[in-house]
Amino acid sequence: MTADDLVSLRRDLHRTPEPAWREFYTTARIVDELESRLGDELAELHVGPDALAGEHRMALPGDAELTHWYEQARTAGVDDDLLERLEGGYTGAVAVLERGEGPTVGLRVDIDALPRTESDDPDHRPAAAGFRSEREGAMHACGHDAHATIGVSVLERIAESDFSGTLKVFFQPAEEVVGGAKSMAESEHIRDVDSLLAVHIGLDHPTGEIVAGIDGFLAVSHLEAEFAGESAHAGGHPEQGRNAVQAMATAVQNLYGIPRHNDGATRVNAGVVEGGSAANVIPDEARLVAEVRGKTTDLMEYMKRRTRRVLRSAAEMHDCEVDVEPGAEAPSATSDEALVSIVADVAGETPGVERVLERDELGGSEDATFLMRAVQENGGNACYVGVGTDHPGGHHTATFDIDEASIGHGIDVLAGAIERIGRERP
Amino acid sequence: MTADDLVSLRRDLHRTPEPAWREFYTTARIVDELESRLGDELAELHVGPDALAGEHRMALPGDAELTHWYEQARTAGVDDDLLERLEGGYTGAVAVLERGEGPTVGLRVDIDALPRTESDDPDHRPAAAGFRSEREGAMHACGHDAHATIGVSVLERIAESDFSGTLKVFFQPAEEVVGGAKSMAESEHIRDVDSLLAVHIGLDHPTGEIVAGIDGFLAVSHLEAEFAGESAHAGGHPEQGRNAVQAMATAVQNLYGIPRHNDGATRVNAGVVEGGSAANVIPDEARLVAEVRGKTTDLMEYMKRRTRRVLRSAAEMHDCEVDVEPGAEAPSATSDEALVSIVADVAGETPGVERVLERDELGGSEDATFLMRAVQENGGNACYVGVGTDHPGGHHTATFDIDEASIGHGIDVLAGAIERIGRERP
Amino acid sequence: MTADDLVSLRRDLHRTPEPAWREFYTTARIVDELESRLGDELAELHVGPDALAGEHRMALPGDAELTHWYEQARTAGVDDDLLERLEGGYTGAVAVLERGEGPTVGLRVDIDALPRTESDDPDHRPAAAGFRSEREGAMHACGHDAHATIGVSVLERIAESDFSGTLKVFFQPAEEVVGGAKSMAESEHIRDVDSLLAVHIGLDHPTGEIVAGIDGFLAVSHLEAEFAGESAHAGGHPEQGRNAVQAMATAVQNLYGIPRHNDGATRVNAGVVEGGSAANVIPDEARLVAEVRGKTTDLMEYMKRRTRRVLRSAAEMHDCEVDVEPGAEAPSATSDEALVSIVADVAGETPGVERVLERDELGGSEDATFLMRAVQENGGNACYVGVGTDHPGGHHTATFDIDEASIGHGIDVLAGAIERIGRERP
Amino acid sequence: MTADDLVSLRRDLHRTPEPAWREFYTTARIVDELESRLGDELAELHVGPDALAGEHRMALPGDAELTHWYEQARTAGVDDDLLERLEGGYTGAVAVLERGEGPTVGLRVDIDALPRTESDDPDHRPAAAGFRSEREGAMHACGHDAHATIGVSVLERIAESDFSGTLKVFFQPAEEVVGGAKSMAESEHIRDVDSLLAVHIGLDHPTGEIVAGIDGFLAVSHLEAEFAGESAHAGGHPEQGRNAVQAMATAVQNLYGIPRHNDGATRVNAGVVEGGSAANVIPDEARLVAEVRGKTTDLMEYMKRRTRRVLRSAAEMHDCEVDVEPGAEAPSATSDEALVSIVADVAGETPGVERVLERDELGGSEDATFLMRAVQENGGNACYVGVGTDHPGGHHTATFDIDEASIGHGIDVLAGAIERIGRERP
Repeated sequence: MTADDLVSLRRDLHRTPEPAWREFYTTARIVDELESRLGDELAELHVGPDALAGEHRMALPGDAELTHWYEQARTAGVDDDLLERLEGGYTGAVAVLERGEGPTVGLRVDIDALPRTESDDPDHRPAAAGFRSEREGAMHACGHDAHATIGVSVLERIAESDFSGTLKVFFQPAEEVVGGAKSMAESEHIRDVDSLLAVHIGLDHPTGEIVAGIDGFLAVSHLEAEFAGESAHAGGHPEQGRNAVQAMATAVQNLYGIPRHNDGATRVNAGVVEGGSAANVIPDEARLVAEVRGKTTDLMEYMKRRTRRVLRSAAEMHDCEVDVEPGAEAPSATSDEALVSIVADVAGETPGVERVLERDELGGSEDATFLMRAVQENGGNACYVGVGTDHPGGHHTATFDIDEASIGHGIDVLAGAIERIGRERP
Repeated sequence: MTADDLVSLRRDLHRTPEPAWREFYTTARIVDELESRLGDELAELHVGPDALAGEHRMALPGDAELTHWYEQARTAGVDDDLLERLEGGYTGAVAVLERGEGPTVGLRVDIDALPRTESDDPDHRPAAAGFRSEREGAMHACGHDAHATIGVSVLERIAESDFSGTLKVFFQPAEEVVGGAKSMAESEHIRDVDSLLAVHIGLDHPTGEIVAGIDGFLAVSHLEAEFAGESAHAGGHPEQGRNAVQAMATAVQNLYGIPRHNDGATRVNAGVVEGGSAANVIPDEARLVAEVRGKTTDLMEYMKRRTRRVLRSAAEMHDCEVDVEPGAEAPSATSDEALVSIVADVAGETPGVERVLERDELGGSEDATFLMRAVQENGGNACYVGVGTDHPGGHHTATFDIDEASIGHGIDVLAGAIERIGRERP
Repeated sequence: MTADDLVSLRRDLHRTPEPAWREFYTTARIVDELESRLGDELAELHVGPDALAGEHRMALPGDAELTHWYEQARTAGVDDDLLERLEGGYTGAVAVLERGEGPTVGLRVDIDALPRTESDDPDHRPAAAGFRSEREGAMHACGHDAHATIGVSVLERIAESDFSGTLKVFFQPAEEVVGGAKSMAESEHIRDVDSLLAVHIGLDHPTGEIVAGIDGFLAVSHLEAEFAGESAHAGGHPEQGRNAVQAMATAVQNLYGIPRHNDGATRVNAGVVEGGSAANVIPDEARLVAEVRGKTTDLMEYMKRRTRRVLRSAAEMHDCEVDVEPGAEAPSATSDEALVSIVADVAGETPGVERVLERDELGGSEDATFLMRAVQENGGNACYVGVGTDHPGGHHTATFDIDEASIGHGIDVLAGAIERIGRERP
Repeated sequence: MTADDLVSLRRDLHRTPEPAWREFYTTARIVDELESRLGDELAELHVGPDALAGEHRMALPGDAELTHWYEQARTAGVDDDLLERLEGGYTGAVAVLERGEGPTVGLRVDIDALPRTESDDPDHRPAAAGFRSEREGAMHACGHDAHATIGVSVLERIAESDFSGTLKVFFQPAEEVVGGAKSMAESEHIRDVDSLLAVHIGLDHPTGEIVAGIDGFLAVSHLEAEFAGESAHAGGHPEQGRNAVQAMATAVQNLYGIPRHNDGATRVNAGVVEGGSAANVIPDEARLVAEVRGKTTDLMEYMKRRTRRVLRSAAEMHDCEVDVEPGAEAPSATSDEALVSIVADVAGETPGVERVLERDELGGSEDATFLMRAVQENGGNACYVGVGTDHPGGHHTATFDIDEASIGHGIDVLAGAIERIGRERP
């Protein structure tokens, strides 16, 4: 792919962001691109229920939501046959290139967007240059548009190289809700992978910087709490209400106040709240979507225990009930030195790469850890690579954007590392 | 109208609840009923922009919302010509019956529903008897379906009586958002009204009880607060966020903690909250719809001042901005003795009425006070009549329902009082 | 007593304020004054355990506190014999004047001060005129210095009048903690009282105004909550703490947020808080002294129930225990019309009294209601009289003071009413 | 000193705990011990204003508090001449041993206790064995009694050794309030120190374990906030109050909710709160003593900024003022490898030491960092040594105690390291 091709694909995906398990257009676009560029060279191209272990998908949205995005993809011109295979939230794909004897190398890229509105500030380049999100309330605010582009291009590059072995690229859905990796980690496709690379762009590293091995993934757990009280006329009988919003507000205040822990970093966020029906009705229901994280699984469990205590007591304080639904979870993981040193070497020789960090901490979470652990438990190696990019707004904010030059750096480093892995069988 | 007619009309309205300014079907149904029952006997029948002073409508919903309900009404078979006159939220009607010399008597009934889901418990009669709400998320949980029915029937009854004078019935939209009465109070229709009656069913009084004059309306004021902060990755950079949900939760906790006041009753309610976009994003926006009330306008103003202080400080605490949009307001009012004694007398002679209370306190708010004050300021009298009904659930709750026998009591008392007013010109 | 005598006694008491059950000097000063002015004319003068039913004393302070104030009284020169009779918090006195046949009239005055520091602002008259509190942290901020003075003077005045019957003056301790009246209401002294008057100065009424009968006493209940958690090094192991101060702060926020009640006024106050030991230790204990009130006893019970729920849940939220100790309570009461009309008549004829209100609402609480109810339950009458006084600061604030002219108004009205009761036996 | 001497000295100090700047008895006891054991062998023994730079003392208590503890020390039999030199909070001592040519080695031990009540549980050894605290509300809950003992013994041991050089032992007051080290770091005594050792016992390491070099000191900052509102009668006029306790509770809730930071550990604690005067008075004042910490000084500054914002907004929310008084602060620091390796070597050869950790993180704060930085800035080395001890309760808790066997380990390792430093001049 030419540099123009890369920009063009990335911008088309950026314009059409689709949140977790709703990547209908995105998957189709990737499949089209692979078929037109690689055609019969691909040994296998799995989409739909074949691509993942469906029963392990987590954090699936409701039917209405799935249908809405499905229909949008149809309207956008996605081929009906392909679309039907994705129906019900079977998004994502696994592409396999067989190139003779050698190790099986995996590359994982995630493809989903976030449920947030993109900035329309003229200083925001996607707005100025005409590739701002065309999907209301959704945005590629974490660079997965670039990841998908890298995945396609690396396949093409390896197909043209003298790599010996097998390359599998996992186009993974639903990373943002910590929902997709597990279903790929439980599928048959991961079983024979000897070395797995995963990639993320940005992460506060500037263009020209590569982090060979990222560690410090926070274990993460999502949950949803529904508070149920009793409504009443807010003017006539406030005392007859059991106020679910008051319970939720008490919970939010105290969730952020869970004590810090000496064993390492913890996190808590009340990310989505809603409740009540009208100004003059004491609210009888409220909903809270939250997440907790910990540097280790134990720390995540500590946060979960304290969170449940807070939710339960806040409900009780206002004579409400609370139902806490556990959500998706991901463990932590580490990058293996064998792969880290290969990536560092290759990066050091890559044009445009000015600085190589051996290791850095993520300080966030990633469900790639499911895939990394699966490979490591099978005796293989895994490595999570960071590709620096100048990003004006922070990850997950309305003004996030990338420096498109860094897409090329990612492709060069990853393709180079895959070739080296083919040779060295680490 | 026969008792069956009354039940049938009330249940049809109950089945088709429409919230404030969205009473398209409801208005059309009332107009149809009036035309088929009274036809040319009506001197005037105002609908659409003619029925009210449009620029004084408060708390109008957005266009998308209006369109959604408009289209639902069309689907339900409302006549296109009539519907067009209501377009843009010009709901409600004023019907005028001229019967020779005599005073102009007004009767105000409100017709809107609440934005809440009706119970589907089999013990809830509308569910059991098949007239539960067919509009998702909307419900007649305050008896306005009965009020509209009473309005139609009283017009018919007076048309058949020997009442001398003019009767105007105000089918008022948008009471629940305190949004409709002002636009009728500012219209020409109220100017020549000498005596105004308003009516409410229930209010914790059982079937067979009539309250001749209700007082103690709490002055009320609505507001909407939008908190704006800054999003950030909740795992990666929680410190970079400015958390709008945390600000809102702090506000909710402290709003309910505004000190009680020695001068009389006050109220506060955070009726609707929402905020945030995803579990892993520090929320950059949150919205709060609240109301405050006071036994006097001064007490309401006290609550408004304290509320603004809480909202402002809560935003500042979390480095957010807050924009507070004032909403609808209604004053307090009192029932005039001249009318109260007439209503009490008539009620005392009405079959089925077992107990008459001269006076009672509402303890809630009502925008009927705008109309009462308008008439009183013109030198006329006003009286707010309570019609007892056994109601299993409280007002504004999912199991609210009425005893349909009380509809007849309301019609008898009001029609009787109007006839007496015609004779006595109080 | 001359006007100068009145001012002199009131100022001496003002200078020596003693909180509940610590009125050693105050009681002694009253006893001295009575003995020197009335001597053998008094049929009985009860002090110490004889004056009240000791086992019904509520809200007694600890021994250390009692000893501290006892010793201060000794240092101030109180006679040892008398002091010994008061030991252990048996403060207050009952003086009985027998003047032949006739009804037994009671007059109740309270004598305790508040635990607060008096203003030393030169604009505060007690500071400017040299009779500011000499007891650190205590102040007559509610006029009980004037009440005690009135009690003494009325006795003297009746002794000089042609009143026929018996007069008992109850110099009651510990009103501010709602702790003293019950022990006098349970004593034998109240049993034969036919008519009881109680008096309060100020209450936002100006000098020259008399309220013949005060009603609207809020029922009140005190409580003390002790939160117990677990300490930990705040830097080293914050997660090992169970934070009692965090629990208490959550409780305070939610106590003030207990829903208002449609049946009438309620109150809640977290009046005293303390907790923790050092900046670098997670607090393992915290204490909260609170009170709730209600227009009726039912409303007070509603507030108690909600308060207990808040305290319990706040403790649980932070994995703490809470021990809730119920404190003193007082019911509500009403003034009997028979006495109200006598007081109103007398007040109307009293020089200096410019305005007489038949009735007014207190809007606060008073344990005089125990005595009023005791007399009423025995078939007698009771009446709570308000004596207006210009007071620059509000009751219970650091700048409260009275207009000393109003002391005379109180004496004239009460003595006049007692004489009239003697004649009319209402 | 024999093992019995060590236990005896430690227990005497444990029995007589004195909080920051009040170590009158403690200092005197140390001075006595030094004089009786070393007599003229000490080149210098500085106490009082000579021992430290008085104007740099931080977090001094008030005069009343100083006087109270001063008098207690006098009562306990401290020599008057010595006591006078300590008057006004000039506690602590610096002892200097000159032993010919060689480097100047410093050893810093802290000597103050905590303001908390010691457990009287029979399972708590100091209670069972009769050396529980005899100072009400004070306790050696962090092992400084052992540190002082180690300081005395190391001096004696070095005096008996063939160490060549100068040894200065800093018996530092007021570590717990982060108040004493700065005044010693600003004194002349630190200027010529080439190598500084500091020591702490416990820190969750068991008996037999030595940490050669501790790092990860959290920078810390204390502050005190006074909220001022306006009092009012809680029953009569709650709306006239400006509630300082409500403001403080809001602040506490939101302080603990300050966002965690991706750059590293942060801490916040509302360690002491108090407010209000009586149950029936709206509180007009409240006080909060808090601390914040950060892995770096920048993180501490982040916490300070957010804390000030929370305090200011919480006051404003309840119409109160807040005055924030900055308190003591300490920076972070690291142990120098040159000394760490010496300590590790010596420890490895010390009988009773079963495990040596090169490095560990403190996870708390220490004002020893002032002294360490002063030496390092002068071109010297510093090292903070951890001496494991089995401690049943956590540091700063009521059941903290040490395994007295570890006192000997500390003395052996430190004396051995000092001798080696004398030889190797690292």
